Amino acid sequence: MKPLVGIVMGSDSDLPVMEEAGKVLDSFGVGYEITITSAHRSPKKTRDYIHSAEEKGIKIIIAGAGWAAHLAGVIAAETTMPVIGVPINSSPLLGLDSILSTLQMPSGIPVATMALGKGGARNAAILAVQILAIGDKSLQKKLKSYKKRLAEKVEEKDSKLKSKA
Amino acid sequence: MKPLVGIVMGSDSDLPVMEEAGKVLDSFGVGYEITITSAHRSPKKTRDYIHSAEEKGIKIIIAGAGWAAHLAGVIAAETTMPVIGVPINSSPLLGLDSILSTLQMPSGIPVATMALGKGGARNAAILAVQILAIGDKSLQKKLKSYKKRLAEKVEEKDSKLKSKA
Amino acid sequence: MKPLVGIVMGSDSDLPVMEEAGKVLDSFGVGYEITITSAHRSPKKTRDYIHSAEEKGIKIIIAGAGWAAHLAGVIAAETTMPVIGVPINSSPLLGLDSILSTLQMPSGIPVATMALGKGGARNAAILAVQILAIGDKSLQKKLKSYKKRLAEKVEEKDSKLKSKA
Amino acid sequence: MKPLVGIVMGSDSDLPVMEEAGKVLDSFGVGYEITITSAHRSPKKTRDYIHSAEEKGIKIIIAGAGWAAHLAGVIAAETTMPVIGVPINSSPLLGLDSILSTLQMPSGIPVATMALGKGGARNAAILAVQILAIGDKSLQKKLKSYKKRLAEKVEEKDSKLKSKA
Amino acid sequence: MKPLVGIVMGSDSDLPVMEEAGKVLDSFGVGYEITITSAHRSPKKTRDYIHSAEEKGIKIIIAGAGWAAHLAGVIAAETTMPVIGVPINSSPLLGLDSILSTLQMPSGIPVATMALGKGGARNAAILAVQILAIGDKSLQKKLKSYKKRLAEKVEEKDSKLKSKA
Amino acid sequence: MKPLVGIVMGSDSDLPVMEEAGKVLDSFGVGYEITITSAHRSPKKTRDYIHSAEEKGIKIIIAGAGWAAHLAGVIAAETTMPVIGVPINSSPLLGLDSILSTLQMPSGIPVATMALGKGGARNAAILAVQILAIGDKSLQKKLKSYKKRLAEKVEEKDSKLKSKA
Amino acid sequence: MKPLVGIVMGSDSDLPVMEEAGKVLDSFGVGYEITITSAHRSPKKTRDYIHSAEEKGIKIIIAGAGWAAHLAGVIAAETTMPVIGVPINSSPLLGLDSILSTLQMPSGIPVATMALGKGGARNAAILAVQILAIGDKSLQKKLKSYKKRLAEKVEEKDSKLKSKA
Amino acid sequence: MKPLVGIVMGSDSDLPVMEEAGKVLDSFGVGYEITITSAHRSPKKTRDYIHSAEEKGIKIIIAGAGWAAHLAGVIAAETTMPVIGVPINSSPLLGLDSILSTLQMPSGIPVATMALGKGGARNAAILAVQILAIGDKSLQKKLKSYKKRLAEKVEEKDSKLKSKA
Repeated sequence: MKPLVGIVMGSDSDLPVMEEAGKVLDSFGVGYEITITSAHRSPKKTRDYIHSAEEKGIKIIIAGAGWAAHLAGVIAAETTMPVIGVPINSSPLLGLDSILSTLQMPSGIPVATMALGKGGARNAAILAVQILAIGDKSLQKKLKSYKKRLAEKVEEKDSKLKSKA
Repeated sequence: MKPLVGIVMGSDSDLPVMEEAGKVLDSFGVGYEITITSAHRSPKKTRDYIHSAEEKGIKIIIAGAGWAAHLAGVIAAETTMPVIGVPINSSPLLGLDSILSTLQMPSGIPVATMALGKGGARNAAILAVQILAIGDKSLQKKLKSYKKRLAEKVEEKDSKLKSKA
Repeated sequence: MKPLVGIVMGSDSDLPVMEEAGKVLDSFGVGYEITITSAHRSPKKTRDYIHSAEEKGIKIIIAGAGWAAHLAGVIAAETTMPVIGVPINSSPLLGLDSILSTLQMPSGIPVATMALGKGGARNAAILAVQILAIGDKSLQKKLKSYKKRLAEKVEEKDSKLKSKA
Repeated sequence: MKPLVGIVMGSDSDLPVMEEAGKVLDSFGVGYEITITSAHRSPKKTRDYIHSAEEKGIKIIIAGAGWAAHLAGVIAAETTMPVIGVPINSSPLLGLDSILSTLQMPSGIPVATMALGKGGARNAAILAVQILAIGDKSLQKKLKSYKKRLAEKVEEKDSKLKSKA
Repeated sequence: MKPLVGIVMGSDSDLPVMEEAGKVLDSFGVGYEITITSAHRSPKKTRDYIHSAEEKGIKIIIAGAGWAAHLAGVIAAETTMPVIGVPINSSPLLGLDSILSTLQMPSGIPVATMALGKGGARNAAILAVQILAIGDKSLQKKLKSYKKRLAEKVEEKDSKLKSKA
Repeated sequence: MKPLVGIVMGSDSDLPVMEEAGKVLDSFGVGYEITITSAHRSPKKTRDYIHSAEEKGIKIIIAGAGWAAHLAGVIAAETTMPVIGVPINSSPLLGLDSILSTLQMPSGIPVATMALGKGGARNAAILAVQILAIGDKSLQKKLKSYKKRLAEKVEEKDSKLKSKA
Repeated sequence: MKPLVGIVMGSDSDLPVMEEAGKVLDSFGVGYEITITSAHRSPKKTRDYIHSAEEKGIKIIIAGAGWAAHLAGVIAAETTMPVIGVPINSSPLLGLDSILSTLQMPSGIPVATMALGKGGARNAAILAVQILAIGDKSLQKKLKSYKKRLAEKVEEKDSKLKSKA
Repeated sequence: MKPLVGIVMGSDSDLPVMEEAGKVLDSFGVGYEITITSAHRSPKKTRDYIHSAEEKGIKIIIAGAGWAAHLAGVIAAETTMPVIGVPINSSPLLGLDSILSTLQMPSGIPVATMALGKGGARNAAILAVQILAIGDKSLQKKLKSYKKRLAEKVEEKDSKLKSKA
């Protein structure tokens, strides 16, 4: 399947968080590729990756990082694709450093910032699907089913709780 | 011009921030509409707006709010369109309340959160253009010019500084 | 026993916290019902629940949520009943996100916010009893006994400590 | 008009915030009295006030304070009435000290905490009306009108904005 | 030994922290007594304790509490003795709530606030000894020995480290 | 009048805050001296001051500083006198840096930390008087009058408010 | 004078802060150059600048930025020169975003982070002089004079204060 | 090997963090010595150490501390050598106290502050090597190899990830 989403992270230690994005994209049948590259340790690889991603038809980047999380911002500086940032709570400051480093981008270079950690990684994938769905009716249908299923799961949990009482 | 982006805010006091998004969309020639509706004071109007927006072909929502900023999240709960949240620093807590209320969405319902205030509102519009540009080559060209222009402006400021020295 | 209090939470993972509210209501002989419904994943169920709760004579809502905790605010937007919010420290940010999302409500739509977690859930139930006691002298008596018992327990702990020395 | 709500504050410097609560109660036709008494500077007056308030039929206390805001908690320790706390952002820490001092009450002694400042004071009054409305159908009607009016005002602002465009 | 210092805490769960203060006072030969009493759950016992402490010749109060830590402030409101506050990190907010509730006292009613937790409890005792030493030369000598011993322990650790290398 | 209290600050820009301590000591008839010396810019002067202060009979040090406020801690490292720290909110971080630098002292070296700014400076002076009053009955009387006067002022403000209504 | 220090900032709005670094370098007779270039708006110019700086013999970079301050980190990723970061408090979050984005760099790529704002910019220049002084005895002498002068200025302020009393 | 870097820490409990700096210096073949001395418990030893370090040819100090971390600032007050501060997250406040106490130094006395904990200790050593490399071409070469190796390790992790897929 042709990859439409590039998932990028600064270190393999971020993989347990970021692979959640991959699982969600799998469930929607959206192709993706995962790349480890660091804004600070491999800046050239990061730029090269972005330009090759543009060439091979990647449409959206999802970038996850912890600490002073510059990865999403550095990528956004190099491309006009939508860049989705996932702050990761890997530092002692609980991820507040990562949230602020990812979110507070200057005017002109947006990063679509998600919640901290695994939930944020999953939401990054859903946002990517929502973006792709603008031009893809089959994805729109899948999103509506997904949303319906979210509500049904709440209903099921509620029923289960009530049947116990 | 057919509106593709819906800009929503909870109160007219947020207009000076959110109209920055409109100006950016104007500069890219992207149609939009502005609506005042509150997650808490007019919840029905908020839902009705979202459903009418979907029907009239709006593709992306930009929602700005301060304090316990639920507006973007409440909209995201009602639609499968991409929702971009702009936290506004109108409370004494400098917007930290608004950032966390907009950003920390649960798994399944993403809000693409921007930086605080006017810069965030401008970035919300640029992200919206980036999203629309996936299916619109003329917008892609405009984004590339815009990005080039950003770099040129830095160059001009630097030259001006150096000519003074 | 006719339920007078509706305890609502966004996910069954919040049950260990929120059932503390139920235990306190049990101890005061106040009827309640527990419902799982999410502001973001099941917005319609949330609204439907509130309207049915009003019809069946529920007088007070206790709503608990973590992360960007919109549940209490979304409920307060739909009803004129008192809404008590319990922030839950389930995110990496220790519940600060949940406190600010629950507390910083805009003018016109109050949420009576409690302390974080289990202690907050217990206090939500006591506040509900205090509210109901305004029109119920037997509850007033029970509250006075409860308060006396709180002081006695402190006394007992102090005596135990002193007898050890 | 017989006072049903006692509004208490630690200093006359808090009056511009707390009188907002009085204005809202006036608009609902609910009687109230305002008292200046400090948890720290006049602890006996604070206790005496609470006990006299109980005797004269006050049903709910609204207490506002800034800095290490102990007033609402100290009152809650003395009474079984519902106590509503309004944190005031009068210290250099923007009211974060006041929020945490008011909110994080131990199990057994709830304080219904509102948002910071004037909006919080207004919401304290609305919560008081919601509580009193449980036993007063005319107040219920007024609350429904108030809520409707909140939505209408949003509608008016939106129409005004749209008529300008 | 006649108690000169009163150590007070809101709950026996604070004992493992606060008994550190007792151990330090023991090592200086300063008499003390430990009392469990809560600002919120047993306000009368708290006041009664303070007044009896004054009568029996207690000179300094050390009060430890977590969450919305009002205990030291409430005691300071009742006495003109020096009151030393020990914030305890027992809440999910890591003790920031306790620090701000203890520290940010209004003008007129000081609480001498220490660092969080066991180190703070130990320091409270040392401060108490420093205060008593103003009128007691033997305590002054002990404090000087203690300070010298602190420096010697650093020296010993440094020597041990160096002998290993 | 023989100085018993040494007021120390790092810069003359802190004088408007710290002279509040002096005014309170004046009102109690307690002698003091004011010294400008910096922990970082004049470390030797700081040490020399402390040792000369001890020699001339100073009993208590009050030290105020902003930013990374090391002054009180550095003084506490050099003396066994009680050291009272006043954090000053002169940095953009609102004094949070100053609070944490003053408060979080390691085990063995206490600093009695006050609230931020002018109120904290006043309270530092009152604490100093409370400490001196342990061995001085006339100061004890003055403190009791002061405390009574605090309560009377609240009473007066309350009466004034009520007479207006 | 041959420039040894490169002062870099993301925007001319940061000039009033960063020119403080230049003034200090002037006073030590250390050559420098000032460049405006943005990590996000002109990433190529930023890289080109660093490489040209290395070639022309610049030894140290001082980089100042506000918001999500990636500039110092992005520069540190491209060079092995020491990089000194100056966080600037230009966002509503008082510079906390800028501190954490500059400071919390991953292992391998240090940024020597200074205090917020103008004081930090001055200190960046002094640190640069301290670094250059390792291989330059005349700079060592100037630093010693500077340090002596800092202490003398404190002495002068103290004398002035005392002469007024 | 002649020591060029002095690594200092307040307690042996900080050794597991600070020895990371030593390991990095070892890998670059830079001599160093480790000393335990506390700003607060052994202030004289701290000063004596700095002056002896200057005499024996130490060029750079790395100082690590937690809580109210004054060590780096106190050293910077005594020397004109570059001082690198490593904040350590040993307190319940996650190291925020240590960051602010180390970072927010007043104008005139810089401390080059690193990230929290072990990564910060490693980066302190790299910064020390970068500083020494200004006058040492062989260190410059080693730094370039190190930087290249950082990028290669990222590449290896990425290849490993891709070979698994």
